[in-house]
Amino acid sequence: MSLPTTTKAHVLRNKPTGNIVLDGPNATFKLEEKDVPELKDGQLLLELLYLSNDPAQRGWMDANQDPERLYVPPINSGDVMRAGGIYKVLASKNDSIPSGKIVRGYGGWAQYQVGDAQRNALHICEDIPGISVTQYLGALGGTGLTAYTGLINVGEATKDDVIVVSGAAGATGSMVVQIAKHIIGCKKIIGLAGSDEKCRWVESLGADLCINYKKDWKTELKKATTKPLANVYFDNVGGETLDFMLTRLGMHGRVVACGAISDYNSEEKYAIKNWFDVVTMRLNIKGFIVIDFTKDFGRIVGELVKAVKEWKIKAGEDNETVVDTKFEDIPKTWTKLFEGGNRGKLVTKLV
Amino acid sequence: MSLPTTTKAHVLRNKPTGNIVLDGPNATFKLEEKDVPELKDGQLLLELLYLSNDPAQRGWMDANQDPERLYVPPINSGDVMRAGGIYKVLASKNDSIPSGKIVRGYGGWAQYQVGDAQRNALHICEDIPGISVTQYLGALGGTGLTAYTGLINVGEATKDDVIVVSGAAGATGSMVVQIAKHIIGCKKIIGLAGSDEKCRWVESLGADLCINYKKDWKTELKKATTKPLANVYFDNVGGETLDFMLTRLGMHGRVVACGAISDYNSEEKYAIKNWFDVVTMRLNIKGFIVIDFTKDFGRIVGELVKAVKEWKIKAGEDNETVVDTKFEDIPKTWTKLFEGGNRGKLVTKLV
Repeated sequence: MSLPTTTKAHVLRNKPTGNIVLDGPNATFKLEEKDVPELKDGQLLLELLYLSNDPAQRGWMDANQDPERLYVPPINSGDVMRAGGIYKVLASKNDSIPSGKIVRGYGGWAQYQVGDAQRNALHICEDIPGISVTQYLGALGGTGLTAYTGLINVGEATKDDVIVVSGAAGATGSMVVQIAKHIIGCKKIIGLAGSDEKCRWVESLGADLCINYKKDWKTELKKATTKPLANVYFDNVGGETLDFMLTRLGMHGRVVACGAISDYNSEEKYAIKNWFDVVTMRLNIKGFIVIDFTKDFGRIVGELVKAVKEWKIKAGEDNETVVDTKFEDIPKTWTKLFEGGNRGKLVTKLV
Repeated sequence: MSLPTTTKAHVLRNKPTGNIVLDGPNATFKLEEKDVPELKDGQLLLELLYLSNDPAQRGWMDANQDPERLYVPPINSGDVMRAGGIYKVLASKNDSIPSGKIVRGYGGWAQYQVGDAQRNALHICEDIPGISVTQYLGALGGTGLTAYTGLINVGEATKDDVIVVSGAAGATGSMVVQIAKHIIGCKKIIGLAGSDEKCRWVESLGADLCINYKKDWKTELKKATTKPLANVYFDNVGGETLDFMLTRLGMHGRVVACGAISDYNSEEKYAIKNWFDVVTMRLNIKGFIVIDFTKDFGRIVGELVKAVKEWKIKAGEDNETVVDTKFEDIPKTWTKLFEGGNRGKLVTKLV
């Protein structure tokens, strides 16, 4: 087989300010033909198989984003669009990752690309019978790592803690519940989700209780966090839920600020009323981004893979939406992120 | 001199739900005559000279306060009202605090009382020429300790940090500025205060810049916290200032949540709009109460006294309002706290 020397790639054409434009003169992206450089020592030639689709990518390329306040280098006009992905190694000059392996890591929207194990954070995807490799983008990838590092490294949750997690039926939340139950063994795990059906599913994953936030959730949650109060709140939603939780955390309680979905697209932000509880109860609110813990990723994915193999953590059933996509349509699949409707992790499968 | 065997004391009669009632059948307090017990080994007989007046006392006795969420034991009906104070030692069975000394600590609204050095956190007030002993209730007492522990123990401020403090002309804020400047030596100190006159005063205390929040403060503050961004925000006010500061803190910035005066009596709470900055910039918001650090109080007051003696920290000029008060009128002076108008620390002087 002769190796590719050119590749198609989607590059950023116009840094967006508002909506993503798919066609016409103001299109956000542009399809280009690019050379594939020759491999140097330590490098790998990668073929793109799957792409991770993440709201954070929108921030990396935003025209109004203050680069001083960005946690990764911005994507500039002319750059290949950046994303997490799963790749097949077509050729290797790296002894630890041989040709033929399937790897996960960070690269671009390019059919073929040269990768560096370190810089692109490439790791071999261990084959687990019955589990799709795409789980390495979700439960065994960024999602699982976010849940794990948020709960353990940031929230410092232990087996003596009472944990509350919002968005408990979501991709991250459902992993938080399972890690709290099966890896840490927390004293009590309380989830919040948006329907009775979702709540029963969250309980089947290991939550002691899951409360439907479309019903009388405050009364229920207050009852569930009285004697003892909660110690750790893993916040996936912000807004009113966060505000109420400030009153349900005990002394030195921790809030893991992972996201604020309820405020993400809202003009009218929710007013936090219970800020004084932060002072009187000495709460500690910690924002975090999973990439702060890259040095631990290898070990953590190992733990998660082990838990999946032992059937403790459920992966691959209901937690992803895989969209068959032609290379040309990568941007179109990515914009589905902002339309809602996909269940769990949105994965692009190149066909 | 014969020692007193009885004392007048204000006891809590009705735990308040709303306003404090000074007279009539629903009065919050009741004046009683009580026995003064005999001294046991290690104890001291104290005569009340000055009282500290603090909003926190209102919370300790509130009828609706959930005792599970209170950081000190609640004051119940029949209990002598609790307060910080300065006392003269009339008799001592404690070798380290002889009779005749002036001490500070926590006791009750009683003319005479028996104190325990440990339980009442009693310390001798070192005499400093030119400095009133009442400073041990403010700059050299709870106020100074709050500024010090908030900035150093909680905010972990170092000489490499850019510090922003709101309420910078207030009792706590003005101490934060001076500790940042003269004890830590921070890289840059930015204050926020409510008039040009106050701002110039804050700058005279050591701030590199103080911004009048009644003018175009956001533009000024943005300019002052660009390259570098701020590292520590000492929050005395909450609300809109806090919200804006979330956008001006750099990576891993810390918010010391000391109070939320702007929300304290407000029906309409301010909506935090920039919560997502907590996540992207990995901010750490830490609520605290000064009494968490009692074990360090002796050492810290020593440092503050040293700085005052060396004329580095200014104490005793503009930072207290001392009200001459008959014993019967202690509750009336205390309620001045909630009327506003007093400048700096409100101190009751028994006459």
